Amino acid sequence: MSQDLRIGVVGAGAMGADHIARITQRISGARVAAIIEPDAGRAASAAGNAPGAQTFTRIEDAIAADAVDAVLIATPGQFHLPVLEPALAAGLPILCEKPLTPDSETSRQVLELEQRLDRPHIQVGFMRRFDPEYARLRELVASGEAGELLMVRAVHRNPSVPDSYSQTMLITDSVVHEFDVVPWLAGSPIVSVEVKYPRRNDLSPERLREPILVLIELENGVLVDVEMNVSVQFGYQVATEAVFQQGIARIGQPSGLHLWQAGRVSTAEHVSFTTRFATAYDNEIQRWVDAVRDGRLVDGPNAWDGYLVALACEAGVRALDGGVQPVDAPARPAFYA
Amino acid sequence: MSQDLRIGVVGAGAMGADHIARITQRISGARVAAIIEPDAGRAASAAGNAPGAQTFTRIEDAIAADAVDAVLIATPGQFHLPVLEPALAAGLPILCEKPLTPDSETSRQVLELEQRLDRPHIQVGFMRRFDPEYARLRELVASGEAGELLMVRAVHRNPSVPDSYSQTMLITDSVVHEFDVVPWLAGSPIVSVEVKYPRRNDLSPERLREPILVLIELENGVLVDVEMNVSVQFGYQVATEAVFQQGIARIGQPSGLHLWQAGRVSTAEHVSFTTRFATAYDNEIQRWVDAVRDGRLVDGPNAWDGYLVALACEAGVRALDGGVQPVDAPARPAFYA
Amino acid sequence: MSQDLRIGVVGAGAMGADHIARITQRISGARVAAIIEPDAGRAASAAGNAPGAQTFTRIEDAIAADAVDAVLIATPGQFHLPVLEPALAAGLPILCEKPLTPDSETSRQVLELEQRLDRPHIQVGFMRRFDPEYARLRELVASGEAGELLMVRAVHRNPSVPDSYSQTMLITDSVVHEFDVVPWLAGSPIVSVEVKYPRRNDLSPERLREPILVLIELENGVLVDVEMNVSVQFGYQVATEAVFQQGIARIGQPSGLHLWQAGRVSTAEHVSFTTRFATAYDNEIQRWVDAVRDGRLVDGPNAWDGYLVALACEAGVRALDGGVQPVDAPARPAFYA
Amino acid sequence: MSQDLRIGVVGAGAMGADHIARITQRISGARVAAIIEPDAGRAASAAGNAPGAQTFTRIEDAIAADAVDAVLIATPGQFHLPVLEPALAAGLPILCEKPLTPDSETSRQVLELEQRLDRPHIQVGFMRRFDPEYARLRELVASGEAGELLMVRAVHRNPSVPDSYSQTMLITDSVVHEFDVVPWLAGSPIVSVEVKYPRRNDLSPERLREPILVLIELENGVLVDVEMNVSVQFGYQVATEAVFQQGIARIGQPSGLHLWQAGRVSTAEHVSFTTRFATAYDNEIQRWVDAVRDGRLVDGPNAWDGYLVALACEAGVRALDGGVQPVDAPARPAFYA
Repeated sequence: MSQDLRIGVVGAGAMGADHIARITQRISGARVAAIIEPDAGRAASAAGNAPGAQTFTRIEDAIAADAVDAVLIATPGQFHLPVLEPALAAGLPILCEKPLTPDSETSRQVLELEQRLDRPHIQVGFMRRFDPEYARLRELVASGEAGELLMVRAVHRNPSVPDSYSQTMLITDSVVHEFDVVPWLAGSPIVSVEVKYPRRNDLSPERLREPILVLIELENGVLVDVEMNVSVQFGYQVATEAVFQQGIARIGQPSGLHLWQAGRVSTAEHVSFTTRFATAYDNEIQRWVDAVRDGRLVDGPNAWDGYLVALACEAGVRALDGGVQPVDAPARPAFYA
Repeated sequence: MSQDLRIGVVGAGAMGADHIARITQRISGARVAAIIEPDAGRAASAAGNAPGAQTFTRIEDAIAADAVDAVLIATPGQFHLPVLEPALAAGLPILCEKPLTPDSETSRQVLELEQRLDRPHIQVGFMRRFDPEYARLRELVASGEAGELLMVRAVHRNPSVPDSYSQTMLITDSVVHEFDVVPWLAGSPIVSVEVKYPRRNDLSPERLREPILVLIELENGVLVDVEMNVSVQFGYQVATEAVFQQGIARIGQPSGLHLWQAGRVSTAEHVSFTTRFATAYDNEIQRWVDAVRDGRLVDGPNAWDGYLVALACEAGVRALDGGVQPVDAPARPAFYA
Repeated sequence: MSQDLRIGVVGAGAMGADHIARITQRISGARVAAIIEPDAGRAASAAGNAPGAQTFTRIEDAIAADAVDAVLIATPGQFHLPVLEPALAAGLPILCEKPLTPDSETSRQVLELEQRLDRPHIQVGFMRRFDPEYARLRELVASGEAGELLMVRAVHRNPSVPDSYSQTMLITDSVVHEFDVVPWLAGSPIVSVEVKYPRRNDLSPERLREPILVLIELENGVLVDVEMNVSVQFGYQVATEAVFQQGIARIGQPSGLHLWQAGRVSTAEHVSFTTRFATAYDNEIQRWVDAVRDGRLVDGPNAWDGYLVALACEAGVRALDGGVQPVDAPARPAFYA
Repeated sequence: MSQDLRIGVVGAGAMGADHIARITQRISGARVAAIIEPDAGRAASAAGNAPGAQTFTRIEDAIAADAVDAVLIATPGQFHLPVLEPALAAGLPILCEKPLTPDSETSRQVLELEQRLDRPHIQVGFMRRFDPEYARLRELVASGEAGELLMVRAVHRNPSVPDSYSQTMLITDSVVHEFDVVPWLAGSPIVSVEVKYPRRNDLSPERLREPILVLIELENGVLVDVEMNVSVQFGYQVATEAVFQQGIARIGQPSGLHLWQAGRVSTAEHVSFTTRFATAYDNEIQRWVDAVRDGRLVDGPNAWDGYLVALACEAGVRALDGGVQPVDAPARPAFYA
């Protein structure tokens, strides 16, 4: 295919605008052909950064106009289902920002719709799988070079969160990434989730009781503990230490310019996921574009992975109220093998 | 006092021999005046490294001969009580290797004997408090520079353990150090202990089910998770990450010569506690000697601290069989304030 | 401009093939429209990776066929001039791999040809300016945050070099990058070059006497010492330490996954410039494409910069035979201001 | 020898007081038996920190009173000779702070006096040889593990210097340490010294033209470049990068607690040689005491090494005025083999 892939971006909020800029400025072989956004101001503003893009208020109209070859969904999670339905019905390749849908029941509906097609069409936007360090860590697990994986010790630290961030979003918006990436690293699904409460950070908004420590057990026995911390003030940090039989690996440490000044040597830490995962987002979109143009199956997380994460999130939210909460996942259908 | 402090070292096994060499070669203002050891071969061998030292088979004889000004106990824990009793009765200053005694009941007997004296006479050998990095971390907590302490994430990794090392020793021989140092760092006592089991390391001896993850809750709400891992093959590592309201501090990372070779830059890691904590042991003994010579109260962990650790160990051993195990400590007596 | 920029890549050797892959797979808004390469096998092999590209044996034919909007020259340096002449005559934007030409005399001819146009059309391929760490270091110089820049201490280390690599190429192929990037960092041109010979590396090919230490003096007094080392075996490393009045900054240190294993903690070092500067090359080409499409002047090194580097290289080659060799540069013409 | 070594410390200024505290508080097997200091106030103040020490105004009196077994000279360099003479005449072991004497002529006189004795009696206080990282680096050179040593790239950075610090002291007080330690690392003597002037630091006192870059050539061809920088404001740093045939080693990097706060991860750097080399000084004195007590030859730098350093310093001072200045050392006498 020598023509650029015509992508319809659904949702022109912060995330959508970021993806529009990315596709326009950095992704090879694709262009933003349509922006689907009911808010006229947002749509116009976004279109200004995507030369040649048409605007629509409904995905159905973009499809009817034959304006797009593929769809990238960047609306809030509760609006994913009404976009997924027509896009799947039209047989379009879809990159859907996480979560697939906000709950496992609607995720299962999506799986049913998708299985009417000849093969999977949806990739879910868990971008950590495209971060070079996570990828290197997964290779290390697969190689056996350091023996079997036994434990994973993870941190997810935000400087602060917006007013809209609620207690359950600790699980559904943040830990959700670990629910995807850890089984992918370890090659084994989640069987239970538990939440422990350390001393509360008084600098956190009143409605939040955090940080929390999340314990995740995988089917192969690997135990994961995740420090989830959204008021850490100093910067943005997502890091993982993997404990193997014969060694330890750590990813997510700061790098770059080292500055010796005023009695210290220091290195800048990230302050936002947009810089920490910039390369991951670029890789994610480029590889999706390449696969779609070549007619290959995408190798990113699929809708089944999104469904498993929805189940884990539901267990995680229950675990906020105490106890070890099991995750009972059905067997993976052959369609998603 | 211009004369060297005459120390009687009780026990001339590996630990005792190490302390004898330390006092003889590196500690200022003290000498090994007596070695108390029933095994004649060991006693002779140790005496060869301590010019001028007498040998005794029983502590009572060394006391009767007025051969020592102070006692350092380096026997296995189950033999501490019969040495502590006569040493306390003689009113001698004592540095007792950890644990104070193997259980809280005998530790309480020691407390009663000690309280017959005018003031505390016992320091317990939790040497981490004398490691420069732990000391710096405690200063950081006390300063409030990074806000309040919320969590502690610790690792204790051994390359391997000897045949005598049993499952309960994961708690009583290894995690025991965290039971002492974390309350000291955080300024708050332990209220509960829980143990989680990750995937087992097949390279571990058959009798051991490890690594384990130990969760410790302090009275002020600080939550501690300790990875306790004794078959990690690659080296010896004791490291701590402290999570504050406004920042994160990490201690125990490798340093020293950086070598770029064969496609990697690498730094040597420790392979034994003897090098990792060499400075801590030296500091511990030197400060004890200085305090005893000056007639000052020692500032290291006292017998009451040893008793609290014994209580935590008993909870930890129960926790190996499941559940959150409470630690119910009585109020600290004024004698130990 | 909503159409992709049609780039003609001249030269399909290793470097040309790398750029063809880059433009095809990662650069947004451009495509390889023509491959100009006299060797038919190479041309065909390269064309296989650039869907839709035509092949030509001479740049003149590609221009006559109106097949290209811009030219990227990736032949060896001695073949640059015969491509630059017709491309400039046709008024095409040019990205010319370093060096501009192999000597200052031919570089001056290029400057004269270019000045017949309305504005500069050539960017020279010194990609370090597009590396994020060099860019950050330049910001630090410009900000004055650490005071004035006083010294630069640089290393350029290759694991080994091919048979075609000669003694003068230490200067013209390797140190040449410092001749461009250091004046750009420091905001001041080179006034002299000197070479010192340390002990020779016996693992180096017989024809080479290296490593060498190159001393570069800038007009503002900044002194630069460059360790140039092409048989260092262990990996590929380009790193710089900048000495300011009030602090020190270091770039080019390894990062990524840290692995504790076998008694060491290690991090992978680069083994080739293709990975060390992958991001720099991508940034260089993307920013050039963006500027050309927007009709903006490119902000990379221009032909005048290339000429200054040619003068410095000539001084450097003389310095291989001893002495402090002056670099006498004429004033920068207004055309290149 | 079971008695403590009775040390006479000559000079109770800052350096002498530091050594008195060290011997009293941290060195095993020795005590300060005499303080030789003409200033009565200083003498009394120092004696207050050394229980049991006598005070004298002249070394001859301490010797006549049979008050000392060994002598540690900590006066300024110009007063070393009048102390060395009587101490050598009395056959006492001597630890003489660097330099041996301020010039090569008087150093040669000392060598002649010493050679009247049965064996060397003087150790010169170049403490870097006792720093664990320099020692490890020397082992690496000796092992051949990374191939032959080719270059050494060193930095010596002070935050600032006192009013008494002059231009020649850049060489005689600071670079002097490299003149001792680099030949010791490399196993080869110095043959020439050259000085280059980078841009001057305006924050430096008016009388100083610095930083300087010092180039040192060794007989085996190893080339050393030393950045000597005494107004760097940010801290105290002494670091070395050794370039081998097959790898690179670096020592002197900051370590300790890592603190993530305010958008950076930082580590404290040293601010004074007293902390950077605290362990080196302790090791130096302890090993000297141990050797003297055992009647062994000391293994630190001897008077001949001190003489070679004096020759190098004289070349270095000449090099401040330009040119490559040769160092012509006579052959090492068998007495110092």
